[in-house]
Amino acid sequence: MTRSDGRTENQLRPVKFTRHFTMHAPGSVLVEFGKTRVLCTAMVEDAVPPHVKAANYQKKPEDREGWLSAEYGMLPSSTNTRKQRDKGGKVDGRSVEIQRLIGRSLRTIIDLAQIGERTLWLDCDVLQADGGTRTAAITGSYVALWDALLAMKEKGQLKYWPLIDSVSAVSVGVIGNAPMLDLCYEEDVRAETDMNVVMTGKGHFIEVQGTAEKAPFERKRLDELLDLAARGCTELCKLQKKALE
Amino acid sequence: MTRSDGRTENQLRPVKFTRHFTMHAPGSVLVEFGKTRVLCTAMVEDAVPPHVKAANYQKKPEDREGWLSAEYGMLPSSTNTRKQRDKGGKVDGRSVEIQRLIGRSLRTIIDLAQIGERTLWLDCDVLQADGGTRTAAITGSYVALWDALLAMKEKGQLKYWPLIDSVSAVSVGVIGNAPMLDLCYEEDVRAETDMNVVMTGKGHFIEVQGTAEKAPFERKRLDELLDLAARGCTELCKLQKKALE
Amino acid sequence: MTRSDGRTENQLRPVKFTRHFTMHAPGSVLVEFGKTRVLCTAMVEDAVPPHVKAANYQKKPEDREGWLSAEYGMLPSSTNTRKQRDKGGKVDGRSVEIQRLIGRSLRTIIDLAQIGERTLWLDCDVLQADGGTRTAAITGSYVALWDALLAMKEKGQLKYWPLIDSVSAVSVGVIGNAPMLDLCYEEDVRAETDMNVVMTGKGHFIEVQGTAEKAPFERKRLDELLDLAARGCTELCKLQKKALE
Amino acid sequence: MTRSDGRTENQLRPVKFTRHFTMHAPGSVLVEFGKTRVLCTAMVEDAVPPHVKAANYQKKPEDREGWLSAEYGMLPSSTNTRKQRDKGGKVDGRSVEIQRLIGRSLRTIIDLAQIGERTLWLDCDVLQADGGTRTAAITGSYVALWDALLAMKEKGQLKYWPLIDSVSAVSVGVIGNAPMLDLCYEEDVRAETDMNVVMTGKGHFIEVQGTAEKAPFERKRLDELLDLAARGCTELCKLQKKALE
Amino acid sequence: MTRSDGRTENQLRPVKFTRHFTMHAPGSVLVEFGKTRVLCTAMVEDAVPPHVKAANYQKKPEDREGWLSAEYGMLPSSTNTRKQRDKGGKVDGRSVEIQRLIGRSLRTIIDLAQIGERTLWLDCDVLQADGGTRTAAITGSYVALWDALLAMKEKGQLKYWPLIDSVSAVSVGVIGNAPMLDLCYEEDVRAETDMNVVMTGKGHFIEVQGTAEKAPFERKRLDELLDLAARGCTELCKLQKKALE
Amino acid sequence: MTRSDGRTENQLRPVKFTRHFTMHAPGSVLVEFGKTRVLCTAMVEDAVPPHVKAANYQKKPEDREGWLSAEYGMLPSSTNTRKQRDKGGKVDGRSVEIQRLIGRSLRTIIDLAQIGERTLWLDCDVLQADGGTRTAAITGSYVALWDALLAMKEKGQLKYWPLIDSVSAVSVGVIGNAPMLDLCYEEDVRAETDMNVVMTGKGHFIEVQGTAEKAPFERKRLDELLDLAARGCTELCKLQKKALE
Repeated sequence: MTRSDGRTENQLRPVKFTRHFTMHAPGSVLVEFGKTRVLCTAMVEDAVPPHVKAANYQKKPEDREGWLSAEYGMLPSSTNTRKQRDKGGKVDGRSVEIQRLIGRSLRTIIDLAQIGERTLWLDCDVLQADGGTRTAAITGSYVALWDALLAMKEKGQLKYWPLIDSVSAVSVGVIGNAPMLDLCYEEDVRAETDMNVVMTGKGHFIEVQGTAEKAPFERKRLDELLDLAARGCTELCKLQKKALE
Repeated sequence: MTRSDGRTENQLRPVKFTRHFTMHAPGSVLVEFGKTRVLCTAMVEDAVPPHVKAANYQKKPEDREGWLSAEYGMLPSSTNTRKQRDKGGKVDGRSVEIQRLIGRSLRTIIDLAQIGERTLWLDCDVLQADGGTRTAAITGSYVALWDALLAMKEKGQLKYWPLIDSVSAVSVGVIGNAPMLDLCYEEDVRAETDMNVVMTGKGHFIEVQGTAEKAPFERKRLDELLDLAARGCTELCKLQKKALE
Repeated sequence: MTRSDGRTENQLRPVKFTRHFTMHAPGSVLVEFGKTRVLCTAMVEDAVPPHVKAANYQKKPEDREGWLSAEYGMLPSSTNTRKQRDKGGKVDGRSVEIQRLIGRSLRTIIDLAQIGERTLWLDCDVLQADGGTRTAAITGSYVALWDALLAMKEKGQLKYWPLIDSVSAVSVGVIGNAPMLDLCYEEDVRAETDMNVVMTGKGHFIEVQGTAEKAPFERKRLDELLDLAARGCTELCKLQKKALE
Repeated sequence: MTRSDGRTENQLRPVKFTRHFTMHAPGSVLVEFGKTRVLCTAMVEDAVPPHVKAANYQKKPEDREGWLSAEYGMLPSSTNTRKQRDKGGKVDGRSVEIQRLIGRSLRTIIDLAQIGERTLWLDCDVLQADGGTRTAAITGSYVALWDALLAMKEKGQLKYWPLIDSVSAVSVGVIGNAPMLDLCYEEDVRAETDMNVVMTGKGHFIEVQGTAEKAPFERKRLDELLDLAARGCTELCKLQKKALE
Repeated sequence: MTRSDGRTENQLRPVKFTRHFTMHAPGSVLVEFGKTRVLCTAMVEDAVPPHVKAANYQKKPEDREGWLSAEYGMLPSSTNTRKQRDKGGKVDGRSVEIQRLIGRSLRTIIDLAQIGERTLWLDCDVLQADGGTRTAAITGSYVALWDALLAMKEKGQLKYWPLIDSVSAVSVGVIGNAPMLDLCYEEDVRAETDMNVVMTGKGHFIEVQGTAEKAPFERKRLDELLDLAARGCTELCKLQKKALE
Repeated sequence: MTRSDGRTENQLRPVKFTRHFTMHAPGSVLVEFGKTRVLCTAMVEDAVPPHVKAANYQKKPEDREGWLSAEYGMLPSSTNTRKQRDKGGKVDGRSVEIQRLIGRSLRTIIDLAQIGERTLWLDCDVLQADGGTRTAAITGSYVALWDALLAMKEKGQLKYWPLIDSVSAVSVGVIGNAPMLDLCYEEDVRAETDMNVVMTGKGHFIEVQGTAEKAPFERKRLDELLDLAARGCTELCKLQKKALE
C-alpha cells in the first residue's frame, strides 16, 4: 500500500537540517520532516534554576552542574486554522507536555557536570506544522545542541565533551490496520493508534509514548510499532551524523 | 529479592476501593494503592465544552454526544514537603500532563453518544501521595465513573449503557537492574526506568508511557516491563470488578 | 421547635475529630460537624514571609519570631454543584476572606516568639460541605496545630510551649424568628441573619462576624445570638480537649 | 482622656460630603472622615451578572430584578508607603474583603426589583487614607447611590423609589483600655480590639465585624463597643440626611 | 471658526494646578485641562529596579544612579461609560503605551545621577476624563516631580538639583480641515489627524506622536500642527513656572 | 561619513521579500531589512471582535464591515540575549505598543467595508532582530496582506478590491550629529534621537513617532529626519511594488 504522498509504509519523509539558520543563537537549526518545519535553537545562560542551585550549594565549585531546559511553541500562522498566542494565565496543556518531553530526552544524553553552572536553553518554534512537530523538534534540537556545545568548547567552557550519545525521535501509527512510519498531519488525524518513540544513536529507548486514539491495541501491534520506530530512528541518526560532518 | 515493604517484585501493594466516600458526587471513590490515597469523584454537568457543542450543532438532537473531562490535583499536605496551591497564572506542567492522561484513558472505554449533551467531570484529588498517584487515579476513576453512570441510568439519562470495557493502570520500573511492579515513592525515586501502562479489562493497551529516568533501556527490558504491567493490570481489573459487585 | 435533623435549637451537630488522618503533615485532623468534613493539616516550613523577615532583621537571633499562615480550599466535588478549580488569575473572594479569618484566629492564641524563624502552615481543605465549613476549619485547625507543635517539641524546636489558649468557632443564625446553633447548609440558606463567632477556651471573643442576610437585626437579637454562640464554643472546647487527651 | 487630634472618646472626626464631585457618574460623592478621603461613585449599567440573569429568566419581564455591585481600590499614592497597583493574577485579599462588605451592606437597604434588569456599580476609590476607609466608603456610597437613583427616577427607570432605609458605618476600637469612636490610622494601629459596624438609619444592625487585634475581649467590652458604634452611626445618618437636602 | 466651548483654534483650555492635593506623597498635584482632571503624584522609594541595580553594581557608591518610573490609570468612574478595573492577566494596551510615554518624557529632563539609588514613582490617576489625559498627566507630573525633589533637597538626599529643563505636553489635531490646539473628548473623536507633542521649556522636542486617525496627512499639515503644538507647550511652560512660584 | 556596514547616510539596508514563505497562511512573507528578518503572515477568520459586531448589528447585512488586527512577537532566540516567552500575566509593554502601531497603520489603507464580516489577522514574528523590526514588520505585512486579499478575491469574498493605497515604514535617527536612514541595532543603541515613520505609497504620513533618546531635538533636526524618512519610504514602496509583480 502506498501513502498519499507516495511513500511506502516504512519510509520517512524527506529530512533536512539547515544549520546556522539564524545568527544570535550559537546553535540554530531549521529541521524539516517533509512540510513540517521547526526552528531549533540552543542558547547558553550563565545561571541555573533554583533546584540546581540548591543542589550545587553543597558541592565544590569544580563539581557544580548545569541544566538543560526546553521550550516549545507554535507560531500563530503555523497551522491551518490560526493558533491564538498564549496570554495571561491560559495554559496550553499540549505545549507543556511536549516541552517536558524534549527536555527529558536531551538531558538523558548529556553529562551536565561538564558544562559548569550554566543553563542550555533549547527553543523549538514551529514555523510550519504538518504532523510530527515534537519528533522533528527533538531530532533537530540534538543538532542545535551540538553546535552550541562546539561554541562553548571554543570558548573553553567545557571540561570534557558532554554528549554521551545522540538522540532522535519519530512517530509511528496504525492507519487502516497498517503500521506506518513518520505520519504527516492528514495521516495523524486518521490514525487508530499513535506512538512517539525517542531513541539514542546506540539504539536504546529514551521514551515510548503510545496512545490508543481510536481503539485499544494488542501487544503484537505494539511490537510491530516499536520495530518500525527503531528503524526510523536509526535512519534519522545517520542523517544527523551526516548533517554534522 | 524482596522489597522495602516486603513485597515480591511482581506484587501489587494492597489495593482498596471505598465507594460513596463523599455524598455530593454521584460517583465518589477513595482508592488506595498502599499508602497512596486518591479521592476520585464523577459528577454530571448538563453542558458540553465548545468544541463538542460545535460538532453537535450539525447533528440531530438524538445523535448529539457528551464529553468526559478529568482534572487532577494534590492537596498541599499530601506530600512530604508542602506543595503550594496553584495561584494566578502559574502552570504546574506535571498536573496538566496527568489530567490529560486520565481524560484520554477514560474516554477510550466509553461511548459518549449514549450520555446525551452532558459532561462527565472526573476529579482526582490526592489526599496522600506515596508514588503511583496517576495510576491509582485512573483505576479509581473507573469505579467512580461506573457509580455516576448507575445514577444516570436510574434517572433515565442513558440511551444504552455506555461502558465498552473497563480500564486500569499501573506503574512498573527497573531498580537495581530488576523490573518491579507498582512502585512506591521511595522506589520511584531510585528507578532507572519508569513506565506507566493503561490497559483495558480485555487486556489491550490504551497508553504506554516509558521514560529512561537514569539510563536508556533496551528492547528486551521494555518487553519485560510490558509483561509485568499487563500482569498488574489484570489483577487490578479483578479488584475493580469485585468492588463493583 | 425541632429542626430538620431532629436537633433542638441550641444543639450542635455530632462533632468528630480524627487525628493523624494523613501521614505527611505532623498535624493532620479530619474534623466533622455533622456532614461537613474538613481536612485540617499543620506543616512546618523553615522560613518566614518577607514582612516577618524584615521585622526579625533588627532582632537578636534568639528573639526572632515565626509566623502562622492559613489557606482554605474546597474540593470540586465537595459541593452539590461542582465547584471549578481556581485557575490563572480568577479570585475567589469567599475563600480569601475565610483563610484570612482562620489565620487571624489562630495567631491570637499562639506566641510566635516560641517557634523560631519558622512558618506554621494550616491547610483547611473541605472534602464535603454542609454548612459551617469555616467554623469547622478553625475548630479542627486548633487540634492539628496542637499535634504539629507536639512534633516540634519532640524535635526540640520550641523554646516554651507557645499555645496561650485554645480556639473554637461556631455559626449561629435566625430562622423563622428563632435563634439556632450550628446551621447546616439547608438552614444557612434560609437564615435571616447569620453570625460566625470565634472564641477562646477561656470564653473571650476573637472574632464576631454578623451579617443581616435578609433583614437588619435589632440589638436584642444580636445579644441572643452571642449567648447561643458562647454556649456552642464552650462545648466545642470540651470536645477538643477530649480529642487531645 | 483626649485623643491625639483633641477629640473625646465618643466623637466622630469632621465628616464632609461633596456631591457631584466628578461629572460622568450620576452619583459622585467625595466623602471625608477627617483626613480620610474616598471618592464614591454610582453608575448604571443596562445588564445584570449571570446569576441574576439566570434567576430572571423564569420571571415575567416586569418582575425581573437588578443587581448592585461594589468595588474598592486605593490609589498608589493614597497611603504613606506607595501601594503597588494590582497586576496580572495577584490577589489583594483585603480589598476583596472590603468590596464584598460594601456590596452586601448596600444591597440590604435597596429593593432590587424596582430598578429593572440593571446593575448599579458602586466604586469606592481611596484618594487619601487615614483609617476607616471602609466605613467612609459605605457611608459615602449611600449618598452616591441616592444621587444615581434620582437620575434614574428622572429618566423614568424606576418603578417605585427602591430605598427601604439608609445605611452608614463606623469603626470603634479599644486603645489603652478605653473604647473609642472612629479611629484614625495612628489609633487603628495601636488598637487592641477593632470593630466595624454597619447600621441602618432605623438603628438596626447590618454587619458587625469585631476582631481581637492584640487580645481576646470579654462580652462586657463587646457591649460597650456596640453602644459606641450605634451612637456614631446615628450621627452619621443625620449628616447624610443633611447632605441630601 | 470658534469651537464648541467658545475657544479659538489656537487656544488652550483653562489650565489649573493644585499643589499638595493629597498629603502622603511629597509631590501631589491635581492638574486640570478644562474638564480633564488628573491626580499626579511623585513618591520616593529607596530602591531601584533590577536593570539599574545591575548597572550600578560596577560603579563606585557615590556614582550610583536612580530611576524614574511612571504609571497611569483611569478610575472606573472617570469616563462616560464605566471603565472596568484591570484584573488578573488582562492587558490594557493603551495604558501601557501612555505610562511608557510619561516615563520617557520625564527621564529626559532629569539627571538621575543626582538622586542616589532611589526610584521616583510618578502616578497619574485620571479622576475625570475629557480628552488629553496623557498630555495633562505629563504636564502635571513635572510639577509633582518638582515638589518631590524639593522635599528630597530638604532631607539632603540630592547631590545637585537634578532638573535640567522643564517638560510639558499638548495635543493638536485636524477637525474639518482646520488644525486645533488641545482637543477635548468630543473634538478628539471627530479629529481626522491627532498628534501629541512633548517639549522642553527651552522649546526642543522630546516626543512627537502623530497618527492619521481618518486619513493620511501631508507634510504641510504636519508642519502646521507642529507649529501649533510648540505654541501650546510654550504657554503651558509659563503656567507651570507660575504654579511653582 | 560612511557607516559600520559601508552604507551612506541615506541608504537603506538590502531589502528582500520572500512571498509564500510558509504554506498555511494565504499571505506569508519573510521580509528582510539587512539582518533583520520578520515573518509576516495574513490569515482570515470568519468572525469580528465584539466592538465591530456591535456596530454591525444595526447595519444591513450587505453593509457590515470587517476588521484587521495585528500581533507582534519575537522568538526567544531572535535576540542576542535570549528573550523569555510571555507567561501568565506578564505584560511586555513594547510588544503591545508595536502591535497597536502595526494594526493602526494597515487599517488606514484598507476599506474594511469590502471584506465582509471577517477579521484579517496580521502576525509579525521576528526570527532574527537587528534593529527596525517594527518598520520591517509594517512593510512586510503590506505584502502579506496583498496576498491574503488576492486569495479572498479568488474565493469571491471581496466586494471591491479594498486597498486604497500601500504602506511602508522606516526608522531614522541621529548619530554623532548626523541624520541616518534605517538604523541597524548597533546604530539604534547609539542614536541620540530615534524616529519611526509610516507613510503611504502616495507620500502621505500615517504615523510619525519621534523620541529624544538622549537629548531633546530642535525643529530643524526634526525636519531633516522627516525628509530622510520620506525618501526611505518612497524607495520601500517601489520595492514592494516590484515584489508584488
